[in-house]
Amino acid sequence: MSTPAYDDQNVFAKILRSELPSHKIYEDEKTLAIMDIMPRGDGHILVIPKAPSRNILDIATDDLNAVMATVQKMAHAVVKAFDADGTTIQQFSEPAGGQVVFHTHVHVIPRFEGVSLKPHTGAMADNDLLASQADKIRAVLA
Amino acid sequence: MSTPAYDDQNVFAKILRSELPSHKIYEDEKTLAIMDIMPRGDGHILVIPKAPSRNILDIATDDLNAVMATVQKMAHAVVKAFDADGTTIQQFSEPAGGQVVFHTHVHVIPRFEGVSLKPHTGAMADNDLLASQADKIRAVLA
Repeated sequence: MSTPAYDDQNVFAKILRSELPSHKIYEDEKTLAIMDIMPRGDGHILVIPKAPSRNILDIATDDLNAVMATVQKMAHAVVKAFDADGTTIQQFSEPAGGQVVFHTHVHVIPRFEGVSLKPHTGAMADNDLLASQADKIRAVLA
Repeated sequence: MSTPAYDDQNVFAKILRSELPSHKIYEDEKTLAIMDIMPRGDGHILVIPKAPSRNILDIATDDLNAVMATVQKMAHAVVKAFDADGTTIQQFSEPAGGQVVFHTHVHVIPRFEGVSLKPHTGAMADNDLLASQADKIRAVLA
């Protein structure tokens, strides 16, 4: 396979251009962390690079490093914010790999003993719940 | 939670010390890529740092960057070697997060349209099959 070209009409590109709202958790020069609106568990975050790339197959090294630095920071933050017992990190590339939005993103999911990940149903979480979870994580980062 | 101390008797530490065998795919100064002996699909690779760390919560930045550079290289290699349609990348921290071996490792799994990941049953793959898959990936990297 060859990786298709980047399409800047994807949801995360629109969030980066502030054309769509998001629950922002953290931002630096190269990355943004937001709440996943279809979470597989409480506190499920997405980390995205600001620069365009489709997935692991075409992201530039400095963007990947910046994303992973934010992933690590967010892993610590969600563990602290939710008193979690661990984290699961996932990155999907291309539809066969599980990718739905074609701007590179890494999932950071706090995990709890005895609690399985919820299936990816496409159902949106309650907006107030996401807002309160975002507050909790930002408080830890502050 | 606080991250427990690193225990150098884990399986990957033993592989790094050559006390246990593995199907090596790739090695550089800071990382090693090997076949996962309990694969969730054909061509399932693990990338590990050579330096000791338990998981995303304690790995040093330069080790994480080196691991992700190898992950990206391996993603391209497995896609090419198996003519895959995408990749799934996973990293588990602590038992609640899905971690079983407590040396940082990142899963790189080639994915194919219409083929789900196999469940993690703990069953070991056929050693000859793993050896032939390792040959295929090394051939692409050569």
